[in-house]
Amino acid sequence: ANLVLLPGDGIGPEIVAQARLVLESVATQFGHEFSFASHQIGGIAIDNGGDPLPQETIDACRASDAILLGAVGGPKWDDPSAKTRPEAGLLKIRKELGLFANLRPIKLFKELVDASPLKREIIEGTDILFLRELTGGIYFGPSGREGSGATESAFQSMVYSVPEVERIVRLAAKAAQGRDGRLTSVDKANVLEPSRLWRQVAARVMAEEFPDVKYDVVLVDAMAMHLINRPKDFDVVVTGNMFGDILTDEASMLPGSLGMLPSASLGDGGPGLYEPIHGSAPDIAGKGIANPLATILAAAMLLRHSLNLTAEADAIEAAVGRVLADGLRTADIARGSDSIGTEAMGAAVIQRLS
Amino acid sequence: ANLVLLPGDGIGPEIVAQARLVLESVATQFGHEFSFASHQIGGIAIDNGGDPLPQETIDACRASDAILLGAVGGPKWDDPSAKTRPEAGLLKIRKELGLFANLRPIKLFKELVDASPLKREIIEGTDILFLRELTGGIYFGPSGREGSGATESAFQSMVYSVPEVERIVRLAAKAAQGRDGRLTSVDKANVLEPSRLWRQVAARVMAEEFPDVKYDVVLVDAMAMHLINRPKDFDVVVTGNMFGDILTDEASMLPGSLGMLPSASLGDGGPGLYEPIHGSAPDIAGKGIANPLATILAAAMLLRHSLNLTAEADAIEAAVGRVLADGLRTADIARGSDSIGTEAMGAAVIQRLS
Ligand SMILES: CC(C)[C@H](C(=O)O)[C@@H](O)C(=O)O
Ligand SMILES: CC(C)[C@H](C(=O)O)[C@@H](O)C(=O)O
Repeated sequence: ANLVLLPGDGIGPEIVAQARLVLESVATQFGHEFSFASHQIGGIAIDNGGDPLPQETIDACRASDAILLGAVGGPKWDDPSAKTRPEAGLLKIRKELGLFANLRPIKLFKELVDASPLKREIIEGTDILFLRELTGGIYFGPSGREGSGATESAFQSMVYSVPEVERIVRLAAKAAQGRDGRLTSVDKANVLEPSRLWRQVAARVMAEEFPDVKYDVVLVDAMAMHLINRPKDFDVVVTGNMFGDILTDEASMLPGSLGMLPSASLGDGGPGLYEPIHGSAPDIAGKGIANPLATILAAAMLLRHSLNLTAEADAIEAAVGRVLADGLRTADIARGSDSIGTEAMGAAVIQRLS
Repeated sequence: ANLVLLPGDGIGPEIVAQARLVLESVATQFGHEFSFASHQIGGIAIDNGGDPLPQETIDACRASDAILLGAVGGPKWDDPSAKTRPEAGLLKIRKELGLFANLRPIKLFKELVDASPLKREIIEGTDILFLRELTGGIYFGPSGREGSGATESAFQSMVYSVPEVERIVRLAAKAAQGRDGRLTSVDKANVLEPSRLWRQVAARVMAEEFPDVKYDVVLVDAMAMHLINRPKDFDVVVTGNMFGDILTDEASMLPGSLGMLPSASLGDGGPGLYEPIHGSAPDIAGKGIANPLATILAAAMLLRHSLNLTAEADAIEAAVGRVLADGLRTADIARGSDSIGTEAMGAAVIQRLS
């Protein structure tokens, strides 16, 4: 398989390097051939050519089987008056590759349950799969300014169409069939017209195509509450781009170990993009102490979803579990006790692969 | 003062009745005259005339000094094909009275710290005042449908203008001056044009008019995370209508005692509207077990913000504190031990007023 690496900024290169070593070890062990090509995205791409997503990166991604991304952004590129920003590369690659579904599993490693800001009895047993719509909604709606001076106003429109809702709901319902068979759709249908369309279409798709999946709807404000006081009640959750941005970030705090959470962005047939949920952590970049496990788990998602290599994905996830069971921790999850560095953690996973 | 009561649906009438008794007791004790007139809103108003906000309710509210609301809504009016819904009354009264600022204090009663889903060391000391913009943004933007059948789409536009941002930021900054002097503005300026306008206007207002207030900005997705793992870092938080809807509900879960949280919706000069944050709780309506304390604390906010009766507001808040210190609990906050009913709780507050 032909894999593209997009290390990006901050700790990106360090963590992607470890995930690559893990993938290489899997290839040897299971007899696959993976080729790797690195390309630029984000701040580094701006530095080198003014464009956070150069055309040659897009072309390479399109021609690949799957993409592994580190992280983009950092204070260096935060100037509000800058012509472009690293995040623009992220939004553009989603749209260019038609990555309409962002999958974020929120799972608790039992060894890390004490890292959660929530009480043990609330968080224990939490296992949610979020599907966030990623190429529509208010993110990509018409926007602009009107008037000037004291009467200036700005607008941006949330738009959803029937096919956009259908495809993400179908994907979510299929995911639910492979899990606990329950799907929750989150919207704001009591206020927003696109949410009313979303709710109608989702109800029809579920009734016609997935009568076996237990389906319910929750308002976005209520969901923001439920995630905190009864997270273990949810199986698969599907929602729009903006609500998904907020709710998945909220949910990612629940396990208390952001450095452990991967995500996948999938389209229709083309290459998927895999990345850790955490950011580029510029404060610790280059120090060799970043936690590579989320990126390694993203590589496992890549094997599972883009290459259909289930046993290989399982092997990586089991190895990560064993590393934790053996008490190995990077600084971010060490809670004050001994920790190891990025490379040592990568090596520890590889050692436990077989 | 001329007060309007809008008991509404579910437990609304029970809890508003107790808040009224508390206000009457304050009036006697401090030598004021409060007149009370009850009017209809929400489901009960739909049942009695088809309109969730009858004109006579609007007229009475306009002519009043302040309004105390119970709660609206319930399964009885949840039919998605219904012509109107109780919540429409709520949205309309905000717009009709120009209530552009929703104030939600998120405060922990030290007696109830164990009710929080968060660990004690995370939540203890949390004291945030949210200001949510309430009459603009995507809630009231242009909306509609286009196309039909398989290509139908729906839109609703988020719109913010310079004066809309200025007035809510000014109110928030003034609130910060009366507290710890720190203000956080929450937006999604990396994606949304209205957020970019919001950020520009807020920065200008803060620099020109409030150089003494420590000001920063946070993205809405990051804020959804911070609220969970470092809630005590925030003083006053200001944000738009949609983000405020989600974040204030998220924040309201942190203390773990929704039945204790009041809110105020204020306009420019006209009457303010005060209410508990919790809903109409149809499952316990009429049973006499609802917690009236959030509504009683809303009455205290009414005295403070609309009638400028600070000592009186302080007296109510202190009485509520004493009730808790004395171990009195309604069922929702009793955590399995003995509880008292709605009327007994109201009476207990009144007894401790003097
Ligand atoms: C960087 C930003 C544009 C992006 C988003 O809002 O989608 C990020 O928050 C994310 O969730 O991947
Ligand atoms: C009922 C609903 C329309 C309302 C809102 O979204 O504003 C409610 O959630 C609130 O926060 O007061």
